Amino acid sequence: MTNTNEYGEIFNLLKNKVNNFWYEYTNHKFVREVSLGSLKKELFINYLIQDYIFLIHFSRAWALLIVKAESMNEMRTAANTVNALINEEIKLHIETCRNEGIDENELFRAEEGIGNLSYTRFVLEAGYTGTFLDLLVSLSPCIFGYGEIGKRLIQETSKNNKYNNWISVYSGKEYQGLCIVIGKMLDEAVYNRLGKNFKKHIQWSNLENKFLTATKLEINFWEMSLKI
Amino acid sequence: MTNTNEYGEIFNLLKNKVNNFWYEYTNHKFVREVSLGSLKKELFINYLIQDYIFLIHFSRAWALLIVKAESMNEMRTAANTVNALINEEIKLHIETCRNEGIDENELFRAEEGIGNLSYTRFVLEAGYTGTFLDLLVSLSPCIFGYGEIGKRLIQETSKNNKYNNWISVYSGKEYQGLCIVIGKMLDEAVYNRLGKNFKKHIQWSNLENKFLTATKLEINFWEMSLKI
Amino acid sequence: MTNTNEYGEIFNLLKNKVNNFWYEYTNHKFVREVSLGSLKKELFINYLIQDYIFLIHFSRAWALLIVKAESMNEMRTAANTVNALINEEIKLHIETCRNEGIDENELFRAEEGIGNLSYTRFVLEAGYTGTFLDLLVSLSPCIFGYGEIGKRLIQETSKNNKYNNWISVYSGKEYQGLCIVIGKMLDEAVYNRLGKNFKKHIQWSNLENKFLTATKLEINFWEMSLKI
Amino acid sequence: MTNTNEYGEIFNLLKNKVNNFWYEYTNHKFVREVSLGSLKKELFINYLIQDYIFLIHFSRAWALLIVKAESMNEMRTAANTVNALINEEIKLHIETCRNEGIDENELFRAEEGIGNLSYTRFVLEAGYTGTFLDLLVSLSPCIFGYGEIGKRLIQETSKNNKYNNWISVYSGKEYQGLCIVIGKMLDEAVYNRLGKNFKKHIQWSNLENKFLTATKLEINFWEMSLKI
Repeated sequence: MTNTNEYGEIFNLLKNKVNNFWYEYTNHKFVREVSLGSLKKELFINYLIQDYIFLIHFSRAWALLIVKAESMNEMRTAANTVNALINEEIKLHIETCRNEGIDENELFRAEEGIGNLSYTRFVLEAGYTGTFLDLLVSLSPCIFGYGEIGKRLIQETSKNNKYNNWISVYSGKEYQGLCIVIGKMLDEAVYNRLGKNFKKHIQWSNLENKFLTATKLEINFWEMSLKI
Repeated sequence: MTNTNEYGEIFNLLKNKVNNFWYEYTNHKFVREVSLGSLKKELFINYLIQDYIFLIHFSRAWALLIVKAESMNEMRTAANTVNALINEEIKLHIETCRNEGIDENELFRAEEGIGNLSYTRFVLEAGYTGTFLDLLVSLSPCIFGYGEIGKRLIQETSKNNKYNNWISVYSGKEYQGLCIVIGKMLDEAVYNRLGKNFKKHIQWSNLENKFLTATKLEINFWEMSLKI
Repeated sequence: MTNTNEYGEIFNLLKNKVNNFWYEYTNHKFVREVSLGSLKKELFINYLIQDYIFLIHFSRAWALLIVKAESMNEMRTAANTVNALINEEIKLHIETCRNEGIDENELFRAEEGIGNLSYTRFVLEAGYTGTFLDLLVSLSPCIFGYGEIGKRLIQETSKNNKYNNWISVYSGKEYQGLCIVIGKMLDEAVYNRLGKNFKKHIQWSNLENKFLTATKLEINFWEMSLKI
Repeated sequence: MTNTNEYGEIFNLLKNKVNNFWYEYTNHKFVREVSLGSLKKELFINYLIQDYIFLIHFSRAWALLIVKAESMNEMRTAANTVNALINEEIKLHIETCRNEGIDENELFRAEEGIGNLSYTRFVLEAGYTGTFLDLLVSLSPCIFGYGEIGKRLIQETSKNNKYNNWISVYSGKEYQGLCIVIGKMLDEAVYNRLGKNFKKHIQWSNLENKFLTATKLEINFWEMSLKI
């Protein structure tokens, strides 16, 4: 058994496998500038607008996970996540944008960046074509990466950082609690489908590849967010 | 504009179109015997077990509706319905069955009847292959039919009917409120996609056919439920 | 290794597991009456019309198998099967019906029986929600069952049987060759995905269940075909 | 009626709408260098390898079009296209690569570029979530763009251009014939589903958006192909 953190064994195995990419994702220039509060407001707002569109498709992907679930527990956890995304995270984006003078209609009319749609369409297609595990693993870098970023940035940030509101969402109890529940679901989903010897299972390397691609697409998203 | 009841214009148009089948479905021998309290307990329990399996797939179909939604409002209404199904209606089935000495594991192990799977697979396939409207219309006979049955049976039933608990769920505020919200969503979904002249739209007769087939599959489900 | 016939190891394992149902399917009254030539023409024509609609959805399911394939070989075999179904088997139904005075438009307008749609929607949904294997196994009872029926009936039939044309399609080289190719694809698909110890794999019993349900739905189809 | 070329009315309407992007796609630096024969062999081989992976997913998307088809004609045209892609275009890539010393296994092991997967996953997801039309329109920029490029480059190229083999595939009778057949299918699919006043139909702007995004993703693919 590997050295695991609170998000579970499987996530940590996948993350360690793509070590360098994971570092590039969670320590990206965009993230560091949020941590320092040095990121231009304009870039942050633009990011929030893209992330609003992202979250809509991400919620759709979580809903697809309900469709692909094989137990009541999996259905409930996925349904709770859909609710957290739709009723909390997306709402927060709408409010933050409204405070910046951007109303919801403008959000809806915003043009989806290529670096944005690449990611969500990859995840959704992985879900439609593949299994519950393919989909859940493709969703994982986003869920757990933001969890790690939140936990780190709440330590690093200063009192006056204008991005503390954003940081406190992902470092907060609610989001961290979600990560732990999803980490547990991921562990059990792998054990139940691939068995305790899952690392020798033919499907395991497919899951590693899905995780790698999704991590690269996160990096790609940050890259896009540094340009306008 | 047709004479509509509180479930909205579109539902009433579709229902009136399949008039005879709708009557056969909502006034089926099974329903009448529930109303009279004369249905054999054994048949009712068997029905609940099948309906438990049905609700799992029905919830999956509602989750697919989130995936196919085209606005935040549609996503929210579908997500709320998934929750109502998973966290309330299914739970009620589990409790009722437990009171009859059938635990949840037994429910899960129960064999899905052909007349049961025919219906949910038809709905799910309509959703996967077709549009949001195809899926929502296929889900409609179940939602609104049970709403109508609930409202009628709460009038007809006597104080000592052993099925009053079941009747009160579907006649209750919560379920009736759900029907009204979904009826509104259905109306707007049709207006937004097919326009105000929807009855002349090429897709309208496809929707009528989906509604007809789903209504027949409801009748088929009751037929199955009268046999063991 | 079990005693396998030419359609491969996996098909034979699945068939032996559902032994009684398989016998009921492949030796159904409908089949016996075709073999004897005693089936009413009216029932046979009605069956052909339903089977025409069936084949359209069955071809769609084979096309979905291309979408879910994981190698060029699987893609090619599935694509060849789609062609055989669309360009040969369906054409044959159109011709046979035309000889009986039923034109293609009438075929298209025919009402799909409940016992017909139950089967194809089950298969398509298994494919959308599940894996390549779930879909291929759900398609198997139809492919191999008709292969077995063809081989048996060509032995049993007499020279004047009015159904010899139908029998010769399924006993013919082309159809039997298709069965052998698909049987090989099924064997390799299981070995590649579940490993050589596939019978101990967690997914194996799911595949057995899919095969059983599809076999029951074949019986259901014959039942429907004996009534008008 | 607009000024249409041989690929049909709908394609020409969509193309004229995204005029600048269409020019950028079909006259991209990569294309011009192929035309002049000045493109580095290394870049061309790399492009072929990516395009091989692209064609696998593109074939899967065409297979999904069969699943979503609503008439035998649509099913046949889509099935013929799947065959042309699998049995001809992909084979050609394998042969060309083999001549350059790259065997099929190496092709299969090649890493799919982000700019590659963005495109195919967008198309596949459009197909899974949307309608036959959403999918067909998303597939269109690739089909017709290569058709236009082929026709132009066969005029521009010189006898000694090392890329004449590639040019002759897309300018050739077979490929051009495919474009015409698909253009006709697209026209009829729009007329049948949205009516003759399709430009006023609510869905029309969705189709324009799909076409625009797919065209941008084509440009993105060329961009990727100029880098290694």
